[in-house]
Amino acid sequence: MPILFTVLDFVGVFAFGVTGGLLAVRRGLDLFGVLVLAVVTALAGGITRDVLIGDLPPAAFQDTTYLVVALAAGAACFLLHRGLGRLGHPIMVSDALGLGVFATIGCDKALRFGLDPVAAVLIGVLTAAGGGIVRDLLVAEVPRILREEIYAAAAVLAALVVVAGDALGWPPVVTAVAAIVAGFALRVLSVAFGWRLPRAPGS
Amino acid sequence: MPILFTVLDFVGVFAFGVTGGLLAVRRGLDLFGVLVLAVVTALAGGITRDVLIGDLPPAAFQDTTYLVVALAAGAACFLLHRGLGRLGHPIMVSDALGLGVFATIGCDKALRFGLDPVAAVLIGVLTAAGGGIVRDLLVAEVPRILREEIYAAAAVLAALVVVAGDALGWPPVVTAVAAIVAGFALRVLSVAFGWRLPRAPGS
Amino acid sequence: MPILFTVLDFVGVFAFGVTGGLLAVRRGLDLFGVLVLAVVTALAGGITRDVLIGDLPPAAFQDTTYLVVALAAGAACFLLHRGLGRLGHPIMVSDALGLGVFATIGCDKALRFGLDPVAAVLIGVLTAAGGGIVRDLLVAEVPRILREEIYAAAAVLAALVVVAGDALGWPPVVTAVAAIVAGFALRVLSVAFGWRLPRAPGS
Repeated sequence: MPILFTVLDFVGVFAFGVTGGLLAVRRGLDLFGVLVLAVVTALAGGITRDVLIGDLPPAAFQDTTYLVVALAAGAACFLLHRGLGRLGHPIMVSDALGLGVFATIGCDKALRFGLDPVAAVLIGVLTAAGGGIVRDLLVAEVPRILREEIYAAAAVLAALVVVAGDALGWPPVVTAVAAIVAGFALRVLSVAFGWRLPRAPGS
Repeated sequence: MPILFTVLDFVGVFAFGVTGGLLAVRRGLDLFGVLVLAVVTALAGGITRDVLIGDLPPAAFQDTTYLVVALAAGAACFLLHRGLGRLGHPIMVSDALGLGVFATIGCDKALRFGLDPVAAVLIGVLTAAGGGIVRDLLVAEVPRILREEIYAAAAVLAALVVVAGDALGWPPVVTAVAAIVAGFALRVLSVAFGWRLPRAPGS
Repeated sequence: MPILFTVLDFVGVFAFGVTGGLLAVRRGLDLFGVLVLAVVTALAGGITRDVLIGDLPPAAFQDTTYLVVALAAGAACFLLHRGLGRLGHPIMVSDALGLGVFATIGCDKALRFGLDPVAAVLIGVLTAAGGGIVRDLLVAEVPRILREEIYAAAAVLAALVVVAGDALGWPPVVTAVAAIVAGFALRVLSVAFGWRLPRAPGS
């Protein structure tokens, strides 16, 4: 069901674009800075995925819709950031949604390109984490994949659900929805309840 | 006219190499640090372009001239940085030249590889911005594409001129020169006159 | 002798994984942060190499052993960091070993893919430096390739030995061992004895 995954790809692009755009507005960047950070954040994960799989040029350069969606996310942040700011944690929630979606479609695409399940999970995690890492590096923050307790773990969970669904022959829609919900929920709940992972003994 | 674009590529490589080399000298890096930052800054944009287009290995690895030009830029900075420093804003001017050149040839190469105009503009901007982003990240500065008022905008302008010239059937030399002059001039004039872009309302 | 180089690749992956894992423990990251930084540091150099050569998907995604070795390095750091810390400079020594190994196999692989010697040396240096650059950027440090006196120089030396051995027809084992020893020794000795490279005159 490629249509489903293309639509989900756009959802992930928009969600990550919103995180980049809102962070740029918060930093007082100008209109172009907001659009650049939105586009880079939105497209970096998928581009990383397609480069690693060897599917070149990346989807983001073959279908203009990706850029339009990313620019729309940036423009929405520029114009509506006060409304979005009232939603409570808009960056964290958007980021969690993008994380779940990109881990799911990254892992799924890697499986369809013949990679083994372990490599597919790794590709899923890199797809999900790529945009946020580039975004945080560009504004000189330590990426939240390193700062936050449960972040990569949520991407791994989503990717594992994809691998499980693929192995068990679930319908693609069921697998995708289950994977996205699992990754998104784990991430948001871990922030809401302050779940923590262990530190190295004696560190 | 591939010869023209190869020569321009070397001009862009040298210009970005100078920005990396001068910044490294200013930070007190040793000889190797200066050469490394010059080479990485000079080659990163073109490598990014070729990876995204899928033209592998990138041009920088197929023709040794690229590396020689980048090393020459670094060596010139190491030996002549005091003379270069007297030229006034040498980093900004070199960076603006590299920006215009790389946006132009990045966009042109993407069009020749069959990408649609919107994707070609995006490739042009990434080619132009790639070297500076890597350079600024390596020395722990916020990249000027985010800090500076009109930077990505200048690269977009150069790339748009390439798309226009391609659509209108201008001779390649005319298109290339017009695009480079447009991008370079917009960038330098925006710095000279302090042109600014709008911020998000209420930010 | 592809077996030799695959084994060496795993040695380099483990060595760089240890540097990422120990740095993550030192920064107080949680279990997942330690594993993520170990894996990213361990695999980034080889992935960069394979992307630039055009050998896609990269080896790290075709053979699960790479990920297992990188995870093992991270887990070892998490559990045993106090013991490793007693070894004296464990990050520097591991990093030097990874540097020598990755410069050697990066250059060798580039030669086998038909790149000319100069490009092969550059690929070797990027393979060796890639992991450390990504690691240091992720924890917001200036990469040691720019901070440290003799770092890129050690990778260049190892790669030059590979080119020399290839040109002179040395047996692959001899070339590989000589190159790794040369790069590792130059790096470690330069730290131990405080060897320095010249700065730009008047900087």
